[in-house]
Amino acid sequence: MFMYDLIEKKKEKKELTKQELYDLINGYVKEEIPDYQMSAFLMAVCFQGMTERELLDFTMAMAESGECLDLSKISGYKVDKHSTGGVGDKTTLILAPMVAALGIPMIKMSGRGLGYTGGTIDKLESIPGLKTALSEKEFLDQVERIKIAVTSQTKTLAPADKKLYALRDVTATVDSLPLIASSIMSKKLAAGADVLVLDVKTGSGAFMKTQKEAIHLAQEMTSIGIKAGRTTYAVITDMNQPLGYAVGNALEVKEAVGILRGEIGAKDLLEDCLILGSYLVYGAKRATSPKEAKKLLMETITSGKAYEKFEELVMTQGGDLHTIRDLDLLAPASIIQEVTSKEEGFVTSFSTGELGMVSLMLGGGRTKKEDSIDPAVGFWLKKKLGDPVKKGEPLAVFYANSKEKLERAKERFFQAVQISKEFKNPPKHWYGAITEKGYQEAETIEKDFVL
Amino acid sequence: MFMYDLIEKKKEKKELTKQELYDLINGYVKEEIPDYQMSAFLMAVCFQGMTERELLDFTMAMAESGECLDLSKISGYKVDKHSTGGVGDKTTLILAPMVAALGIPMIKMSGRGLGYTGGTIDKLESIPGLKTALSEKEFLDQVERIKIAVTSQTKTLAPADKKLYALRDVTATVDSLPLIASSIMSKKLAAGADVLVLDVKTGSGAFMKTQKEAIHLAQEMTSIGIKAGRTTYAVITDMNQPLGYAVGNALEVKEAVGILRGEIGAKDLLEDCLILGSYLVYGAKRATSPKEAKKLLMETITSGKAYEKFEELVMTQGGDLHTIRDLDLLAPASIIQEVTSKEEGFVTSFSTGELGMVSLMLGGGRTKKEDSIDPAVGFWLKKKLGDPVKKGEPLAVFYANSKEKLERAKERFFQAVQISKEFKNPPKHWYGAITEKGYQEAETIEKDFVL
Repeated sequence: MFMYDLIEKKKEKKELTKQELYDLINGYVKEEIPDYQMSAFLMAVCFQGMTERELLDFTMAMAESGECLDLSKISGYKVDKHSTGGVGDKTTLILAPMVAALGIPMIKMSGRGLGYTGGTIDKLESIPGLKTALSEKEFLDQVERIKIAVTSQTKTLAPADKKLYALRDVTATVDSLPLIASSIMSKKLAAGADVLVLDVKTGSGAFMKTQKEAIHLAQEMTSIGIKAGRTTYAVITDMNQPLGYAVGNALEVKEAVGILRGEIGAKDLLEDCLILGSYLVYGAKRATSPKEAKKLLMETITSGKAYEKFEELVMTQGGDLHTIRDLDLLAPASIIQEVTSKEEGFVTSFSTGELGMVSLMLGGGRTKKEDSIDPAVGFWLKKKLGDPVKKGEPLAVFYANSKEKLERAKERFFQAVQISKEFKNPPKHWYGAITEKGYQEAETIEKDFVL
Repeated sequence: MFMYDLIEKKKEKKELTKQELYDLINGYVKEEIPDYQMSAFLMAVCFQGMTERELLDFTMAMAESGECLDLSKISGYKVDKHSTGGVGDKTTLILAPMVAALGIPMIKMSGRGLGYTGGTIDKLESIPGLKTALSEKEFLDQVERIKIAVTSQTKTLAPADKKLYALRDVTATVDSLPLIASSIMSKKLAAGADVLVLDVKTGSGAFMKTQKEAIHLAQEMTSIGIKAGRTTYAVITDMNQPLGYAVGNALEVKEAVGILRGEIGAKDLLEDCLILGSYLVYGAKRATSPKEAKKLLMETITSGKAYEKFEELVMTQGGDLHTIRDLDLLAPASIIQEVTSKEEGFVTSFSTGELGMVSLMLGGGRTKKEDSIDPAVGFWLKKKLGDPVKKGEPLAVFYANSKEKLERAKERFFQAVQISKEFKNPPKHWYGAITEKGYQEAETIEKDFVL
């Protein structure tokens, strides 16, 4: 009757005790609690939510459901960044080497992508030879030595989350704020970093469709992080259009390398990296203000140190450096085709989630966990929101390995792009952040960042 | 993704189509839909309810999930009664022979009791030799021949309900109005009677604690019955005290036999039987008014025909008639003990559910399906609500087969009975009914019943 009572309590919006939440999580991991009881509980949470206290205990129970990483041997403040996921989000590829180039240990355990959002691991794996399944010892040794390592999550890290996520995924219990917050934070807490920066995306390509929802989720997560003794910041960024220009695994690596080399620059992408990175550097006490942190980060680009760190990462994890030094060698596609505008006007709206689906249709994403990914495919936007466009002018360049897939993807692409006669202001690339001062709008904070 | 979408729809309070509900039920019975998805769906129903249309389709899908009884060979209107369950509820044992004595075929498929409410099958099984597992053919032949048969539910009748009920029972999704209504009505519709009378109990010993809830459930169920083409009535009866005086399997048979013989009479019990029975007889068109129906039913008692019919039922199903003719032979208990009042005053309140637990503690009920039942145990109330009581005067006579169980049961009994100095009006034994005229209060209807 134990689990029955917990379901009933949650259904009636009564607060569960810390012991009950730990027993719930541990019983589930040990398979003493069957899926059918857990799914009823999760659905009740969708309706009744969790109190702040419950959410913290639930998250901690999940974090402690397996082994936690022991980072004590690595000196200095360890930092970690998490994004709620978006289309063209290659910030980790840029941010991690920048931060590591300042000597700050970057702990990066990353998932594979499911659906259209892609995963950092999938992107890195487009580099031939690069190994992403490091043992815990390899991972820790590498972080200690070169301050950066990227690995897929180990099976022993927050196993409760893995099991719960798989169940939520088939029982329509994914979109619950406390369940999302606890899922993300349990993994982050178990991974052990001292400083966490959460990139919470909002818009047509994000899980959180409205700013209000995104802020709410960010608040829940930072609250957990702080109560668990971690320095935690959250930044609310825009996902009403892909981040940067490239969408697709190898294409995103190429764009990231371009930014790291200071060659090309999607302003939104670089700015996002600088803001997220500034909080990491400031949180790690390498700078006395976010402004100083930003300056230090910019210097890692101009000095070439961030790019060098990226090369070091690739080399250390066994990746073929030639494909980075000459990006044409990195996962070339057999078909490259411009997609041109059928009308004149301004790009006023993207169905960003649909643009993610376009990449998935080309072969760049998974619908099932077992699916393999084609690293070469995707598209490179030539126009972003607010840009004027003439009839016949390229909207994007497509990279494909199948004519049939290309045709279907192009069709879907046109449906996802809106071109209007009337100009519309493009959205800001970020909306605000949660720091020690609570939530502040981007306008207020930006003053602190002006160099 | 099919089931995922249905869960999501229900969660968002969107209406499911008839096809979707049939696919849901059939997929579940065929085990194509796993328990963990169904329990999430059921929990969503607990919060979002069902529209009237959904509820009808859901119930019909459950009713049609197995074989429906074919009653076409039995002439005349077939009738059936269902009670939502209460403590000391032996109405079927009295009502069924009364109605059958009028030549009206009584279709009675009954469940075993779980928890404190007991089941008609368990009560009848206290008669040695009585067989309650009739085959469908035996059952139908017997109804045709003697107009009455009582059998446990066959496995092929509404299997979806059986499977769903077992799941609800362990996932805290029992107390949802549409789920209760569909569970009851699916079995009743599958059992095939033309006329249904639903006895919806309310009070401290009932599932529905308030009149409002009871009326709501009654309305949902009659609405389903009528839309499914059955003449359907519902009566709201009181369960703030046990019905009649006896609680326990053999004891309840003894009280029922007493009533059928016209020897003893708990007014509330007989009145309940007459009201419920009147709607059955009137619905079966054997009388032109409920009043006339009541008169006919009374005559089955005074003429001895109802008792004769009960003997015929017992004999036909293989029961030992000696134990009925001499009730002292029926499941005697080894310990019989009076429980006397420790104070003087009036009986003002029973925790009726707790009184059910007292019987269960003596061995008269099940906590698990596998538990066996001791037919002999229980108690016979000597005082009911509103009765004056002196110190040392008996409140009840206990029947037990274990001293230890008796002591614990007595302790619980005292906690469940409240005696106060001040007199308090006892509750009415019924509150109203749903007929062709909609819901009417008992006061209004009673005029129609005055003989």
